[in-house]
Amino acid sequence: MSSTASKKSLNINNINPHVKEAKYAVRGELAIKSEEYRAKLRKLKQEGPPTPPTDSGLPFDTVISANIGNPQQLDQKPITFFRQVLSLLEYPNLLDHDDVLLQHLDYKQDAVDRARWLIKEIGSVGAYSQSTGVPAIRESVAKYIERRDGFPADPSNIYLSAGASSGVNTLMNVMCANEKVGILIPIPQYPLYTATLSVLNARCCPYYLDEASGWGTDMETIKKSYEDAKANGTDVRAIVVINPGNPTGASLPRSDIESIIKFAAENQLVVMADEVYQTNVFIGEFFSFKKVLRELQRDNPGKDGQEGPYDHVELASLHSISKGMVGECGHRGGYFELIGFDKEVTEQIYKFISIMLCPPVIGQCAVEMMVNPPKEGDPSWELYHKEYTGIAEGLKTRATALYKAFKEMEGVEISEPQGSMYLFPTIHIPEKAQKAAEEKGKKPDEFYCLELLDATGICVVPGSGFGQKPGTLHFRTTFLAPGTDWVGRITKFHKEFLDQYR
Amino acid sequence: MSSTASKKSLNINNINPHVKEAKYAVRGELAIKSEEYRAKLRKLKQEGPPTPPTDSGLPFDTVISANIGNPQQLDQKPITFFRQVLSLLEYPNLLDHDDVLLQHLDYKQDAVDRARWLIKEIGSVGAYSQSTGVPAIRESVAKYIERRDGFPADPSNIYLSAGASSGVNTLMNVMCANEKVGILIPIPQYPLYTATLSVLNARCCPYYLDEASGWGTDMETIKKSYEDAKANGTDVRAIVVINPGNPTGASLPRSDIESIIKFAAENQLVVMADEVYQTNVFIGEFFSFKKVLRELQRDNPGKDGQEGPYDHVELASLHSISKGMVGECGHRGGYFELIGFDKEVTEQIYKFISIMLCPPVIGQCAVEMMVNPPKEGDPSWELYHKEYTGIAEGLKTRATALYKAFKEMEGVEISEPQGSMYLFPTIHIPEKAQKAAEEKGKKPDEFYCLELLDATGICVVPGSGFGQKPGTLHFRTTFLAPGTDWVGRITKFHKEFLDQYR
Repeated sequence: MSSTASKKSLNINNINPHVKEAKYAVRGELAIKSEEYRAKLRKLKQEGPPTPPTDSGLPFDTVISANIGNPQQLDQKPITFFRQVLSLLEYPNLLDHDDVLLQHLDYKQDAVDRARWLIKEIGSVGAYSQSTGVPAIRESVAKYIERRDGFPADPSNIYLSAGASSGVNTLMNVMCANEKVGILIPIPQYPLYTATLSVLNARCCPYYLDEASGWGTDMETIKKSYEDAKANGTDVRAIVVINPGNPTGASLPRSDIESIIKFAAENQLVVMADEVYQTNVFIGEFFSFKKVLRELQRDNPGKDGQEGPYDHVELASLHSISKGMVGECGHRGGYFELIGFDKEVTEQIYKFISIMLCPPVIGQCAVEMMVNPPKEGDPSWELYHKEYTGIAEGLKTRATALYKAFKEMEGVEISEPQGSMYLFPTIHIPEKAQKAAEEKGKKPDEFYCLELLDATGICVVPGSGFGQKPGTLHFRTTFLAPGTDWVGRITKFHKEFLDQYR
Repeated sequence: MSSTASKKSLNINNINPHVKEAKYAVRGELAIKSEEYRAKLRKLKQEGPPTPPTDSGLPFDTVISANIGNPQQLDQKPITFFRQVLSLLEYPNLLDHDDVLLQHLDYKQDAVDRARWLIKEIGSVGAYSQSTGVPAIRESVAKYIERRDGFPADPSNIYLSAGASSGVNTLMNVMCANEKVGILIPIPQYPLYTATLSVLNARCCPYYLDEASGWGTDMETIKKSYEDAKANGTDVRAIVVINPGNPTGASLPRSDIESIIKFAAENQLVVMADEVYQTNVFIGEFFSFKKVLRELQRDNPGKDGQEGPYDHVELASLHSISKGMVGECGHRGGYFELIGFDKEVTEQIYKFISIMLCPPVIGQCAVEMMVNPPKEGDPSWELYHKEYTGIAEGLKTRATALYKAFKEMEGVEISEPQGSMYLFPTIHIPEKAQKAAEEKGKKPDEFYCLELLDATGICVVPGSGFGQKPGTLHFRTTFLAPGTDWVGRITKFHKEFLDQYR
């Protein structure tokens, strides 16, 4: 190896240093180790007869991937209407057999009609669409936003994307002009943001969320972070807000959103609103940045032909089919809406996305159904409604069970789950455990999560993967795994961990 | 506008200059204009009764998108086996009704079995897969490569991607460490390469293909280009080869491939082999870079425990479901195989792709079927074979018709189509036309293509979009559009164009 290594073009010391700097813990060491455990158990099962856990040499018989919001990996059933339509789009010949579909295969007429309409608009799902997505689907998205907010939405402002991640990547590529450009990022955050900033060699301007107020935004903290960045010569271009929160599980009150928009308006910042969890709200309601912005613009008109104080605000709002009750991660569908962007800038955005041709067309179709699901009275409504509410209730039940369990654990603090798919408890790790971690070259929260995985098969992500206030430790867990028995595994582990290192 | 413009965060002068520099003509002005024509005609049709062309104010009644390799947009029928399996993956409940599928809906048992197997391996296509793709699918790809080349392939070297474009983007992101890094790019080329280099602020080291020898590679030209780059202080990391050629339609002889590998071995260059057209070969046969590299390694072993002269070569070979007889562009599926890459480098590649989570899972499944189609004797074989050969013959027929037409046109030179989906004729444009172009601020080939679109509804891409030797003019057209009547439209236009500007 070493003798060839010297003759190679690429080595760890000459590749893109900004790629090297990027960190993405959600699929890091823990995730990889958990996949190895899963493969090991799977192999044993296939070799069957069903083996007691001991045979695997592991103290558990299932791996629970609570590290990533991947509902269908955790046995969340896809919504029937969506999948029926997608199956017809994949094999349109089925549409020549309505009778069979309706009488023998449980398809409903509205699913058949939706598929016919989409095929009329798209042609084949095997063809590239326009770079920004299928025009008719962008229109459906605009209508959804209008219903959601009560303000008009223009299809030409809608950009379909391969999940929200690809939208974030596009917008940051266009914004990050040089190494002095910075973006305000909430901490803790979903690491897509810091990883992308690293790759683009731009600056992360972190602002801490307020754990004491259930991970809300604190304007004083944001202003301070902004001022610090400016003082360092950073050209701050945008502020990212994730609402409902990832990893925090917070759901922002309208007042927080209004304050952020006002701050952005005063300081010429793009607002990047990551709203992929907009339907995952347990407490209170979801306020979209678009709606609050339009209300501010309406209530603060310009005087004497002048622009109003909010008319210039640039807002990018991102959504996805991967979350909510849809959970179609594998289909890589999403969209972003751009408000107030300069036309010359959106032309560059168009060109940039054109280079990758188009988002997956079947994923675009899933977006269409997410924003335009069966309505009350439609043949598919009853089942759709039952499935949708069933998933929503399951999420709430498990969130609550997990929340209660955490509340009762020694040395764990947790705020009430408000939204998204995550809980982000604080953990206090004993001195002795911190030492043990140090000896293994691990951060204390990493060490805790590794021990949890080895003992229970449950994979979570250490808080250090999202960022946390110095001196505090957390981990993020989804509450997607079926049932609540696995919650007991965590309780049991936690107690034993404390006893061991007390 | 202007009063708010000044208050905006982003404007054309402060966004990423490297995004601005990127050029991607395939979806540029001509493509946008052709979509407008298409929409106009479509609207008239919907308002029906079927209208004669005159009503549209356009001198044609259909738009022919010959600007982009998008087979199914041009009515190429998807392969039935692929789509049957995909439909079952989207709606697995169908698998509870084998009898109905087999007796009433023309599914064959092997399609049902394939879907069952994929679901067993994947779980739900709505779940994220591992970042590099579903393990079982990576194994199928490795087996395909083994059958193709007669040399072993390791699934752990296979990275599934959202089309080949995303693979190119990944590899270039990792390779392009700074603004001195350069990559040897064939000219003419598919503009993904130059566009990505622009975005990454790295250097394109162009080497001209030899039109006289049917667009083959000329080692003297490549060496010269490499030396020039080194002389300019460029850190040349890789050489890109597109075989079969895009836009050229060439298919490289084995000797060209061997020479390129030897050159790369001597100069420590990664070979990036864009082999997405590997099944689109009309003349001679396709030689994969992997096979030729393995043969060179086999025939030139190292002596006395030393490495052989080719053992260190780094090769990335890219493939896609978008081309070939599959043509499933909209599903965004592909893969790349990495040979000889340093483990520390591939770990960074893994992390980079993890940030975007995973390629579309349905697209991954289409990759599996492309590399593992029905075999002779399987229930689906007969239809699969008929569809596959039908598409292949259609492509060849239209390529030949177009080739013959071009050969007979005044002032047009064309080499015999050997592979891929394109012809790239040279056009000689009269002085007067060049002046007319200049007056409109267009390049002469752009002007020609715009006139062609306005007169015939046929959209092609000017040679300047791919790069061409100074003083030469070309355009790229696909031969995907059904029938051959549209070829006559080009002939008629060309004659009139010459007469007008003679």
